[in-house]
Amino acid sequence: MGSLEMERKTVGWAARDSSGILSPYTYTLRNTGPEDVYVKVMCCGICHTDVHQVKNDLGMSTYPMVPGHEVVGEVIEVGSGVTKFRAGDVVGVGCIVGCCGSCRPCKADIEQYCNKKIWSYNDVYTDGNPTQGGFAGAMVVHQKFVVKIPDGMAPEQAAPLLCAGVTVYSPLNHFGLKGSGLRGGILGLGGVGHMGVKIAKAMGHHVTVISSSDRKREEALEHLGADDYLVSSNAERMQELADSLDYIIDTIPVFHPLEPYLSLLKVDGKLILMGVINTPLQFVTPMVMLGRKSITGSFIGSMKETEEMLEFCKEKGLSSTIEIVKMDYINTAFERLEKNDVRYRFVMDVAGSNLDQ
Amino acid sequence: MGSLEMERKTVGWAARDSSGILSPYTYTLRNTGPEDVYVKVMCCGICHTDVHQVKNDLGMSTYPMVPGHEVVGEVIEVGSGVTKFRAGDVVGVGCIVGCCGSCRPCKADIEQYCNKKIWSYNDVYTDGNPTQGGFAGAMVVHQKFVVKIPDGMAPEQAAPLLCAGVTVYSPLNHFGLKGSGLRGGILGLGGVGHMGVKIAKAMGHHVTVISSSDRKREEALEHLGADDYLVSSNAERMQELADSLDYIIDTIPVFHPLEPYLSLLKVDGKLILMGVINTPLQFVTPMVMLGRKSITGSFIGSMKETEEMLEFCKEKGLSSTIEIVKMDYINTAFERLEKNDVRYRFVMDVAGSNLDQ
Repeated sequence: MGSLEMERKTVGWAARDSSGILSPYTYTLRNTGPEDVYVKVMCCGICHTDVHQVKNDLGMSTYPMVPGHEVVGEVIEVGSGVTKFRAGDVVGVGCIVGCCGSCRPCKADIEQYCNKKIWSYNDVYTDGNPTQGGFAGAMVVHQKFVVKIPDGMAPEQAAPLLCAGVTVYSPLNHFGLKGSGLRGGILGLGGVGHMGVKIAKAMGHHVTVISSSDRKREEALEHLGADDYLVSSNAERMQELADSLDYIIDTIPVFHPLEPYLSLLKVDGKLILMGVINTPLQFVTPMVMLGRKSITGSFIGSMKETEEMLEFCKEKGLSSTIEIVKMDYINTAFERLEKNDVRYRFVMDVAGSNLDQ
Repeated sequence: MGSLEMERKTVGWAARDSSGILSPYTYTLRNTGPEDVYVKVMCCGICHTDVHQVKNDLGMSTYPMVPGHEVVGEVIEVGSGVTKFRAGDVVGVGCIVGCCGSCRPCKADIEQYCNKKIWSYNDVYTDGNPTQGGFAGAMVVHQKFVVKIPDGMAPEQAAPLLCAGVTVYSPLNHFGLKGSGLRGGILGLGGVGHMGVKIAKAMGHHVTVISSSDRKREEALEHLGADDYLVSSNAERMQELADSLDYIIDTIPVFHPLEPYLSLLKVDGKLILMGVINTPLQFVTPMVMLGRKSITGSFIGSMKETEEMLEFCKEKGLSSTIEIVKMDYINTAFERLEKNDVRYRFVMDVAGSNLDQ
């Protein structure tokens, strides 16, 4: 590495407008403050949200935008107040890089629910500059939002855990659904759904993948290790499995009826929504009242849960199913992800793409 | 009392068809079995469900039907296997008089969620005969579904607790919302809503009554002791109270939007639905996900919770606001209840109406 001055620049792949096409973009990183960790990016997973953000699907995008929030990298330099990390550590950065620190969620260590949280990219940092994500040579991140990747866990395996993994782990942890022997349903088998099957199986649950077609049966049962596969249009099997599940993790990102899935839940069962859907979902009240069922949702997870989840995955030997590609493949990867043409997560080999040279 | 043979007949007020008009009706009670308690009815509250049932609004009514499921009476005779009660005890009977005893909810002492539960009326008992409710001279009830009314609690005060009271107490108990200092909202101020304010206040909560109009402000603040009154069309106050409530007990029995109320909840807040509404309710997923909020519901309460709730109400000196009337007023009472023209619960003075003479 050269001098600090030279290190302040990095190259990322940025979208310039809502076409969502990414191309190399050089920008300045802030100096490493007392609480900051300067991270050289090794790899970064692609999440569906990245596609929505670069295309301005949520109407909140500013450009140039370097996406990427499943970031694994090596610590190059730490600020004077940083004690948890040192140069050479392999660390992770997820969806959030800032929070207020004083609200009720922040004080309860669930900073993902802070109203003033700062996103890893497409947001404005406390210094007034835009935040930029992990499809870049380097990032500077406050130590609170950096986690250590457990020794022995491959960086490319860790990357998808930092968003998809903790997104599934957090509600199971929070809602008391970690114990072995529970019966869970996973609705939808994309990036989050596939991680749901793996994490739920690692917790010792009986896992049923629920899908609208038979298309992913072999994938679910043979490759991901699910215990059962339920096609939602099969009325006989839906009836057979009525009142049988402790929870359903619902990853469907578009409008869908809830009643068929509520009926699969036991008394006190929980339907946990993971998809941001702006078309209203519907239900009739007896479906929840007469079994004290809950319709709820969850949003990524806390830094504390991210650390726990990484340790859990290491201990259980859990691996993500990924496809590793170089940075110049990113536009193709985004296109394929939009068509669900990936098993199950793209991870960009950022370090191997030599962005900062 | 005369011989057992003579005691097997009783007079109730029954609906004969979906006109819902009640008139005296003589029928036979079963003999007091080993596990049964023979109860002379003292008084019985009227619940909105009674109106729906006599008019066949739920499409499941059979006639003649003697409604009434907030029953307080005196024990006249007990079966040989009954140890908990003896003649002279003042006891209560609620919505349910039977359950399977072997399913998961039954084994967990939440028999109200048993799929084979038997309703106090408009149902068929294990002997093949119709069940008949508390607007009658007497009932014979299995001891499992009988609770002791605490010494010193007036029978007419206890009656509304057996449905409306436990309906509110049970979810607060189950969802961990009993602690003092919580902030709760009560949406709708009918029989259940008014009990909600009283029970939540007795738990030491800060209680906000939420209503569509200003009409019940004085009632809520002056008479029921609520701490705040919020008109849902007042955008400024709705904004001011955003993210402020731990729970909302939603007693509205017709379609209504959920978003305004979800926005009042804190992170992890719970919207607890109490109204049977067959028109689908709607919400968009970010409203629950981004604050890990739950839309849930609850259905009466268990016998165990009913006992706890009665002790709680006695300890706190909680009283229901009731209007006591004689049995021959019941059709007028039903009419007035349909128009919400009662503060807040009718209780029929059954014993004072001399039905069985």
